[in-house]
Parts: sequence; C-alpha cells; structure tokens
Amino acid sequence: MAAGVDAHTLLGAIEAGGTKFVLATGTADGTILSRHSIATSSPEATLTEARDWFANQPRISALGIASFGPVELERGSPRWGHITETPKAGWSDCDLAGYFARELNVPIGFDTDVNAAALGEFRHGAGRGLSGMAYITVGTGIGGGLIVNGKLARGAGHPEMGHHYPRRSPQDRDFNGNCPFHGDCLEGLASGPAILARWGKTLSDLPQDHEAHELVAGYLAQACHTLFACCAIERVVLGGGVMKSSGLLERIMSATGEVGANYLPGRDQQTVVSPFLGDDAGITGALLLADDAAS
Amino acid sequence: MAAGVDAHTLLGAIEAGGTKFVLATGTADGTILSRHSIATSSPEATLTEARDWFANQPRISALGIASFGPVELERGSPRWGHITETPKAGWSDCDLAGYFARELNVPIGFDTDVNAAALGEFRHGAGRGLSGMAYITVGTGIGGGLIVNGKLARGAGHPEMGHHYPRRSPQDRDFNGNCPFHGDCLEGLASGPAILARWGKTLSDLPQDHEAHELVAGYLAQACHTLFACCAIERVVLGGGVMKSSGLLERIMSATGEVGANYLPGRDQQTVVSPFLGDDAGITGALLLADDAAS
Ligand SMILES: Nc1ncnc2c1ncn2[C@@H]1O[C@H](COP(=O)(O)OP(=O)(O)O)[C@@H](O)[C@H]1O
Ligand SMILES: Nc1ncnc2c1ncn2[C@@H]1O[C@H](COP(=O)(O)OP(=O)(O)O)[C@@H](O)[C@H]1O
Ligand SMILES: [Zn+2]
Ligand SMILES: [Zn+2]
Repeated sequence: MAAGVDAHTLLGAIEAGGTKFVLATGTADGTILSRHSIATSSPEATLTEARDWFANQPRISALGIASFGPVELERGSPRWGHITETPKAGWSDCDLAGYFARELNVPIGFDTDVNAAALGEFRHGAGRGLSGMAYITVGTGIGGGLIVNGKLARGAGHPEMGHHYPRRSPQDRDFNGNCPFHGDCLEGLASGPAILARWGKTLSDLPQDHEAHELVAGYLAQACHTLFACCAIERVVLGGGVMKSSGLLERIMSATGEVGANYLPGRDQQTVVSPFLGDDAGITGALLLADDAAS
Repeated sequence: MAAGVDAHTLLGAIEAGGTKFVLATGTADGTILSRHSIATSSPEATLTEARDWFANQPRISALGIASFGPVELERGSPRWGHITETPKAGWSDCDLAGYFARELNVPIGFDTDVNAAALGEFRHGAGRGLSGMAYITVGTGIGGGLIVNGKLARGAGHPEMGHHYPRRSPQDRDFNGNCPFHGDCLEGLASGPAILARWGKTLSDLPQDHEAHELVAGYLAQACHTLFACCAIERVVLGGGVMKSSGLLERIMSATGEVGANYLPGRDQQTVVSPFLGDDAGITGALLLADDAAS
C-alpha cells in the first residue's frame, strides 16, 4: 500500500508508558506522519491531553493503544482494554480503550507495549520474512512479546518473559535479585534497576572488564537459548535502555551460542539482534494494532 | 465427521519410535480402526514390514508419520521427511517420507513424534477448546511440542524443550547431568536415564520420601513455569514413562505454583495435566498429520 495522508487509511497510535505517552498518526505500512509526546501524570490529565491532540489531527479511522501493564487482553472480559492493578498511583483500573473509543469514536486495537513492539518489529523490522520471533525489552522491567507462525502468542494472559528463572552463574550466588515477586528471576537480575541496585551504576557506566557485563549478558543469553529451544523461533530482538550498553549485544550473541552448545536443529537460522526500528518499534506496532482494529 | 471405514476417509498413521513402530489406520476424528506394532530393527526390515502391513489393510488416502528425531521438517529441503544424523545405528539419513510415498503412493504428513503427540492431545485430548498448549514427554529423552494460537510452532527446526536449563536446586549441585551435549540441561537431570544414572533406580522404585521425587518434580515444574511465562499457553501436558511414577504429577503441579509465586496474568487459566489420550497421543496425532496431508 502507498504511504500518504488519506482520510480513509489514516491511523492513530498511542504508546502508553509509565513516564510518557507517545501519540502518533500514520499508516499501516509503518509510516509515521505526525508525532507528539506528553508526560504521564494523572490518568485524567494525560488522557485529556492525548484526546485533544488527536482532535487537532486529521481524522483517524482507528486507534491502536500499546500500553504498559498489567492490562486485560481477554476479549470477552468487561475489563478488556483496561490497565488492571498497577503500583502506578491512580492508574489501576484505568479504561484506556473505553475512554478513547468514546471520545474519538473509532475502533480501538489494544495490546501490551511489548506485544505491540514485537508486532512492529515482526512486520516492518527485524522479523520481516520470518515465521517466529520474540521481542524483549530490557529496561525498567524485562518484558517480551512472542510471535509464532506469524502471529502474536495469545492465550492465558500475555507472556511475562522477565519472570522466568535463568540459572545463576556459579560465581554469582550472593545477590538476591530485586523482583518483589521472585527475587532473582530474569528481571530481578538483569533489568536496569537490578543492575543499579547491585552495582550502583548502569552497565554503561561500569568498566568493560567489570564482571557485571558477562553476568548480565549470560542471563539474557540463557533467555534467548530457552526461547529458541522451547519455541523454535528464528530470532530474538533485544531492545530497551539496558541494551544501549556498548558490547552487550555482542556478549549475548556469543554466550547464546555457548549455552546452546551447537545442538538445536534450527541453530543456523537462529539469531539475536537489536530492533531495526530502534525506539519506534512500539509506536509502529500500535499503528498495526489500529490497522487490525480498522479491518 | 462420522467415524467408520470409508475408502475415501481412511487414513494411515505410523508412530516411528526407537524401539517400536506403531502402525494404524483410522479417521481424522481420532478413531483408530486397526493397529499393529513391530520392533524397530534395521531400516530395511522395519520399513518393509510396515509397508506390507499397510498393503494388507483397506486402502488409505494419506499417511501421517510421527518420527523419533532428529528429523528434517523444512518443506523446501531435499531432505524433508528424513531422519537426519542419529546415533541409532543405520537410521541416519533414512528417507521415511519418501519411502512410504513411493511404496504406498499416498500423500505423506510428517513431523516429530512429540509434535504429533501435541497435535493429538490438542485436537482430541487435553487441549480441546484451548488456544495454546505444550506437550512434553519425559521418557528416554525429554522432548516437547508447542501449540500457539491453535497451531504447532514451526520455524527454525522444531522445539527441543529438553535442552534448556532449569535452575539447580541449592541442595543439588553435585550431579553433572547426563546429557552428552549440555550436561545438566532438563533432559540431563530429569529423563529416565538421568534418574537411573544418578540414583540407580527409576523414580517409581525409589521411596516416596527420597529426595529424587522433589528434585525431579522441581525441574519439571520450572519448565512448566518457563513455558507459561514465555508463551502464555494455558496448559502443559506431561506424558512419557517417567510421568508414570506415582505422585509426580501432583508434585509438579504444586511446585509450578510455588515457582510462579502467583504472579503470571494468566495463572488462573494455567494447568498441568496428564495426557487425556494416554499412550495414544502420538498415533492419534499421526492420523491428524495424514488428514492435513490429504486435504
Ligand atoms: N545507555 C544506557 N546504558 C545502560 N543502561 C541504560 C542506558 N539507558 C538506560 N539504561 C537503563 O535502562 C532503564 C530504562 O530503560 P528504558 O527502556 O529506557 O525505559 P522503560 O523500560 O521504563 O521503558 C534504566 O534502568 C536505565 O538505568
Ligand atoms: N512406571 C515408571 N516409573 C518411572 N519411570 C518409568 C516408568 N516406566 C518407564 N519409566 C522410565 O521412562 C523411560 C522410558 O520412557 P518411555 O516414554 O516409556 O519411552 P521412550 O521415551 O523411549 O519413548 C525409561 O528411562 C524408564 O526408566
Ligand atoms: Zn519476577
Ligand atoms: Zn541437553
């Protein structure tokens, strides 16, 4: 399809994050035509500001919302499209989908931020031409979206990839991890706040020969191997703030090979990469959610 | 569809295992109409015997083969439908699909034994009405098939669920595991031969208060949790010889809950069960592979 503003195909997108909301209009081929960022404050203020921005754009045909979680994705639930119980003050039970459906009077597509980013990368970035892929963000938390046979994995809730347990390195048994639920699950060991809690700095601020680099890379590599072994996907895409540390992706790539010991039947086709869309994976995915909702 | 012998809908199925081949005819609703078992000897002898059995049955419209691995599943590969490099003497490079296509002159469906068992359970057993499920066999090896959005996960090769790494229990750091590739991957810790190598007996022959029960259950529970967390599937079905140990399923169910710490968004829908089809999951799945190939 050709890109270009056309009242019929113009789509809206919201990437709803804990610190900012990214608002955009664009088309299903991933073209972003206008974009605006607002700070996440109270739900009332933030939602009103977002609605007013869309009201000043050419009319959109549908809106896709990629939201921080936890969210309700069960289509049959009366709380579909809501943020559920979140520690973020005021946001529990916020009916994002309902609000924008009423205020903008358009069909709404809704998913988690990471599912949307996975979809964006799959259709317009690192996943083009593949059949299975995972997108993992390593940031304030660790979350992921899984695509199998070309479709987002949906079933019981949504994946919570940050909360499975990598094996601890034998040289690393003291830190208890900082996940309030699991202690040293993947998120409790390798998220930005876990790294900060443990070593007092971000990975980027620790010298390249500091053990933190190998340890964090090793835990993320195990997650990649586990996904390859359990799901036979072709690619893991690793995004988020922590992945900006120089050398981290390369360390993970090399450690993933070591963990797998050259065994998996699909090993020649299995790769670990950075997002091709950079920080635009989520908002691009939100456009695709809008496209799905429109059709 | 109605069950009953009908030349048009009669399907053939082979479950090709390392010790025996199960041969059957039946229909796509999972009804098995005739069944015969032969010992796995040389490829020549085994394949001829299988062909002769089918030659003496009413004519089948298609044949589904569920094979021990490793196998080639890539549709575009000239080795599609072959067993690839196997330690099993004589069987490397065996063209199972080609042989039966030529000899029986029917379309062939082909997949791994565990993918077929997953399909059988999904459509006619423990997975009915679900959207995502994993089937894991815990026997001589540990292998699994994954179903997401109602379809078998295919991509780079096929899943090798036995070869990811559960976290070792703090009380259990001495045994090195018996996987020739990875040492203490899941298969190296919890398969029948691993249990035998370590404690000299099967789980069933060890007293119920022996540590082996909790350790093995704990490792399998971690695999269940990892699959729930990474894939948002609703159910893990655990089959194979080791699962016949009394109390094991119950221990795994309880340990899976502990590992998850009541966190996953889909937890209320996520269950661990035994195969509803018992030992017929694989052969039923092979019938479904035949059905897919026929249509
Ligand atoms: N360049 C960097 N190097 C290492 N860590 C970083 C870098 N930038 C951000 N981080 C870490 O990433 C986390 C924020 O991740 P990010 O993906 O930007 O946000 P969020 O997960 O909240 O959407 C913080 O914990 C921060 O310490
Ligand atoms: N009742 C049982 N209790 C415990 N272990 C068993 C039992 N039956 C078989 N096993 C173990 O299961 C393994 C065989 O698994 P099985 O699924 O029957 O075969 P395969 O994996 O070769 O298809 C053996 O290692 C055996 O020790
Ligand atoms: Zn956790
Ligand atoms: Zn292994």
